[in-house]
Amino acid sequence: MNLSDGRRRVVVEGVQPEIDCGRFAIKRITGDTVTVEADVFADGHDVVTGILGWRRHGAKQWTEMPMEDLGNDRWRASFVPEEIGNYEYSVRGWVDHFATWWRGMQKKREAGVDVKVDRLIGADLIEAAAKRAPGEDAERLLAQAEQLRGPGDLLGLSSEMVALVSAYADTTLAGSSQEYGMVVDRPRARFSAWYEMFPRSASDEPGRHGTLKDVERRLPYVAGLGFDVLYLPPIHPIGVAHRKGKNNSTEAGPEDPGSPWAIGGAEGGHTAIHPELGTIADFDRLVVAAGRFGLEIALDFAIQASPDHPWVTEHPQWFRARPDGTLQYAENPPKKYQDIYPLDFESEDWQNLWEALKEVVDYWIGHGVKIFRVDNPHTKTFAFWEWLIGGVKAEHPDVLFLAEAFTRPKVMYRLAKLGFTQSYTYFTWRTTKAELIEYVTELTTTEVREFFRPNFWPNTPDILAQQLQGGGGRAAFVARLILAACLSPSYGIYGPPFEMGEDAPITPGSEEYLNSEKYEIRSWDLHRMDSLSEVIARVNLARNDNPALQGDAIPAFQPVDNDQLIAWTKATDDLSNVILVVVNLDPHYAQSGWVDLPLAALGLPAYDPYQVEDLLTGTRFTWSGPRNYVRLDPAALPAHILALRPHDAPVSYGP
Amino acid sequence: MNLSDGRRRVVVEGVQPEIDCGRFAIKRITGDTVTVEADVFADGHDVVTGILGWRRHGAKQWTEMPMEDLGNDRWRASFVPEEIGNYEYSVRGWVDHFATWWRGMQKKREAGVDVKVDRLIGADLIEAAAKRAPGEDAERLLAQAEQLRGPGDLLGLSSEMVALVSAYADTTLAGSSQEYGMVVDRPRARFSAWYEMFPRSASDEPGRHGTLKDVERRLPYVAGLGFDVLYLPPIHPIGVAHRKGKNNSTEAGPEDPGSPWAIGGAEGGHTAIHPELGTIADFDRLVVAAGRFGLEIALDFAIQASPDHPWVTEHPQWFRARPDGTLQYAENPPKKYQDIYPLDFESEDWQNLWEALKEVVDYWIGHGVKIFRVDNPHTKTFAFWEWLIGGVKAEHPDVLFLAEAFTRPKVMYRLAKLGFTQSYTYFTWRTTKAELIEYVTELTTTEVREFFRPNFWPNTPDILAQQLQGGGGRAAFVARLILAACLSPSYGIYGPPFEMGEDAPITPGSEEYLNSEKYEIRSWDLHRMDSLSEVIARVNLARNDNPALQGDAIPAFQPVDNDQLIAWTKATDDLSNVILVVVNLDPHYAQSGWVDLPLAALGLPAYDPYQVEDLLTGTRFTWSGPRNYVRLDPAALPAHILALRPHDAPVSYGP
Repeated sequence: MNLSDGRRRVVVEGVQPEIDCGRFAIKRITGDTVTVEADVFADGHDVVTGILGWRRHGAKQWTEMPMEDLGNDRWRASFVPEEIGNYEYSVRGWVDHFATWWRGMQKKREAGVDVKVDRLIGADLIEAAAKRAPGEDAERLLAQAEQLRGPGDLLGLSSEMVALVSAYADTTLAGSSQEYGMVVDRPRARFSAWYEMFPRSASDEPGRHGTLKDVERRLPYVAGLGFDVLYLPPIHPIGVAHRKGKNNSTEAGPEDPGSPWAIGGAEGGHTAIHPELGTIADFDRLVVAAGRFGLEIALDFAIQASPDHPWVTEHPQWFRARPDGTLQYAENPPKKYQDIYPLDFESEDWQNLWEALKEVVDYWIGHGVKIFRVDNPHTKTFAFWEWLIGGVKAEHPDVLFLAEAFTRPKVMYRLAKLGFTQSYTYFTWRTTKAELIEYVTELTTTEVREFFRPNFWPNTPDILAQQLQGGGGRAAFVARLILAACLSPSYGIYGPPFEMGEDAPITPGSEEYLNSEKYEIRSWDLHRMDSLSEVIARVNLARNDNPALQGDAIPAFQPVDNDQLIAWTKATDDLSNVILVVVNLDPHYAQSGWVDLPLAALGLPAYDPYQVEDLLTGTRFTWSGPRNYVRLDPAALPAHILALRPHDAPVSYGP
Repeated sequence: MNLSDGRRRVVVEGVQPEIDCGRFAIKRITGDTVTVEADVFADGHDVVTGILGWRRHGAKQWTEMPMEDLGNDRWRASFVPEEIGNYEYSVRGWVDHFATWWRGMQKKREAGVDVKVDRLIGADLIEAAAKRAPGEDAERLLAQAEQLRGPGDLLGLSSEMVALVSAYADTTLAGSSQEYGMVVDRPRARFSAWYEMFPRSASDEPGRHGTLKDVERRLPYVAGLGFDVLYLPPIHPIGVAHRKGKNNSTEAGPEDPGSPWAIGGAEGGHTAIHPELGTIADFDRLVVAAGRFGLEIALDFAIQASPDHPWVTEHPQWFRARPDGTLQYAENPPKKYQDIYPLDFESEDWQNLWEALKEVVDYWIGHGVKIFRVDNPHTKTFAFWEWLIGGVKAEHPDVLFLAEAFTRPKVMYRLAKLGFTQSYTYFTWRTTKAELIEYVTELTTTEVREFFRPNFWPNTPDILAQQLQGGGGRAAFVARLILAACLSPSYGIYGPPFEMGEDAPITPGSEEYLNSEKYEIRSWDLHRMDSLSEVIARVNLARNDNPALQGDAIPAFQPVDNDQLIAWTKATDDLSNVILVVVNLDPHYAQSGWVDLPLAALGLPAYDPYQVEDLLTGTRFTWSGPRNYVRLDPAALPAHILALRPHDAPVSYGP
């Protein structure tokens, strides 16, 4: 019999939230209310106490709080982490013999049973508690025990005294859950609006290579659109060997700038800046300037090398050798990508490779970068990411990582579990009402919500989504923008092609842009009359003004009797901010229908009228009752973003 | 960096079945097909191999089998354990570089791409496999590698050769799941029919104390009813201190025999036999005789003592002392049960207490007992049961334990998880169609099915269920019998009160029997005309003849347009045996309705007629189509147990 103590009677089961038996940490942001539930129970019928403990990782002391008994042996408690970093939480419980005795006493007194011996039992229990109590409390307890041993049959215990005894319960035989992990991030981890742009296309003069200084001049524009993250594709030197030409041709002309993802040249690798973009001093100035506009610079972290990357000669062992002495280029048989060498994570020298990659991230953190968009993380090992992100965040808990893993669902979720802060999603290919509802429901109502923070993108440099190509024009773009921005607290667009309405694919049916900025420098007239900049700014303003669109509130899809109209509400917990979004998914025709709202659940009056404000147009009108008519004409605007308020509510949000 | 090997790329997630992250073992019986699924995947797009391994506990070698790729990174394999005992299983996977290469080669060949270097890569991979292969295989592989290095551009690999290379894949970087446990029992663990009776009421002469010899004479009767487990309440000496009288009165008369659960007297404790019942030699003879009738004797294991139990004086430290020097009797404040002392599992001497209790079980195992019905296991510690059942089954894997835990759901499930073979259930209080469907669905379609084997009882000595008291008489008893016997592969009745139709409670509304055998000796005329023995025998015959009623097939509840009629089918996997049960829950009135059957799912013809045999009456008739009329009159029989067969099917089962 090698059980440490067979007398432990309490077990803890079914702790929620947790991911994969506690293998991975749940994700929260500062100020979140973290609610933990567990089954806590013992054999028999004694009174059990359930306790939630939590602490910062590395702290010795746990903060402990009593859990509420919800019935059916389920317990619950909540706490609010105020600082970013790693946390632990666990649940424990013990049998409270004094509380058990006290419960029995009350029943016996009611039944008029003799309690002479019971008083002595109670006195013993209180005296035992006194031995665990300090000074004054110990004295009060001893006095109480003495009184119970005296004559008379009164119990005479105040509720205060009952609580005092339980406060010194014997916890030596407590049962515990394992410890669970939690990563607490800054709020931008959940709520963020990204704008992606190619610095080399940022020049105002057609034909001139854009620079980081040009990007700096572009900051007021991006901030004016209401974004808070400015994400730049790789800014490093670009290889010349096997450089790709315009429209992904294998023959590059002498003027072709190559793909920024073919990283590394004579000028350096992942810690160098492409000379035509500028210097590290320019970069440092850009980061500071962006901050003044409320923007953070996010860099691309793409683990791959052009044949001209310094690592190719300095660390050939980090690449896969072929029997003919060459290095293995990227391929997806029968396609070849000879301008790119993948790093080999099965290399015998993997430890130095890992360290070198972490040095890259640390280098840019040293230059003020706190957000990394990671290119194709799913083609590098899981263990590497867990080590890298864990290590970086241990030193810099404010650093965020976005996973660009457009791959199989389980791989995407695994990457999120092991530490990525945010993730690209399948949103780009979910277009019908049914598809959107099914996917958003999976992301927001299953355990996925504990670890996977979606970032919805209507377009990227790699994906000119089909629904933007169908001739739907402006209406299609705006509909997808509003779906992304109002279904997910984090979203992004690839501009200027988005606001300029670029909709031509390289070939019909392809998702590749024609004349993609991946392979050539483009020049954009941002002040074109048909730019979507104004509606983008309106949407971001609505997001920034309305907490309901910022938190992890579950979108509640509301019935509309028209499959081309999708409607959902999002609300803060206290219902002080309620938003209804209705989008017409048909970019060609006006669609109308009746939207059904659960008024009571939204804090709206059943019979009185309530106020509705369209945050895209500023129009205010009045609705009443649960069923209201909506008509959306794509020729005007294909969506409503409506703030709903009782007429007597203070207008605490809104422009 | 202290990762043992960062090059491991494959992860295993979501292994099913498993209980509480592998904390507890799943349950199966010999001959079951154990199907295991898991997510097995790596980064990137290489070919992955998934492997299921299993072994007897303690064996060094794993049996390994390839898993089938189900798509979406899900894999599956099955195996059949043939012996009882403890097993382990786990899933692992690795990247198969050769298979990845081969897949690429086929695509390149189709595209007409030059594969000169690829042939050399393949040769290297095959040569590496040769180094892991023994003699002849190594030679074949080396010859193949040599050929690939030669001139020409043919690959020339046979599918046999491709499989041979993969058979010697490099598994040094395999990823694994944890190991999961499985307890494999003999078939009676799942399929059993219990008959409970008080030996002291087994005498044929009214007034004479029944004996074990009387029980032996009762064996043909019990076997004739079709039962296979004969369960006896405690057969030990009964205490005299505070002995209970008839109908649970606190004053016992001199003739009152006391409750068999007040265990222990001057004649001994848990390893002694009440002298009036006979001797250990009588018991040994009973066990052997029962075996000849296909019956197993199940003993009651009730961990409690009368004040006269030898342990009270020999081991007073196993009981809780009160401040007045007396020992604590059982109580449920304000009720007292002074004829019973609970054992104290918080005793400092718990280790010796545990050992003593295991000695009790071992003693009876030594006398041929292989089934224990455990009284109130929920008032003893969980850790004790896990230790006891684990320890007993390590030595005697054929021993089964039934938990009589009528308590809160999570406590019941915990006891099942930690080792109890079967469990009493809430069936006794689930009476309406909706309640029955909800409860059976929970037991058979959730993870509960992996660890909790229900045993349904319409009555017990402690529970004269309300629905047996309501004047429903014979029809109510038969309906509850058939619900229990055909919804659950294990069930039991407490007789003779069940077959005699005893329906009088001690007070109206109580579940206690009037003149309960717990406190007095009763005499039964088993040959009364109104005995239910014939229908009981018919029901057990149907169970014994029809595999569909014996396995863990999920009852499929079928629609009937009458809430008083409940219908369900059970079928073997191969549909060679399909049973439809229809029960009228109203014991007072005939009820009729239309039963809807999913014919295709049951292997029945859509248009042709099919045969229906009522196993209770032997009547055969013909149905056709999915919708058929049923009328059940409680004055005749309140249920059908129907075997459904295509007309051309061989009648392989049935009387």
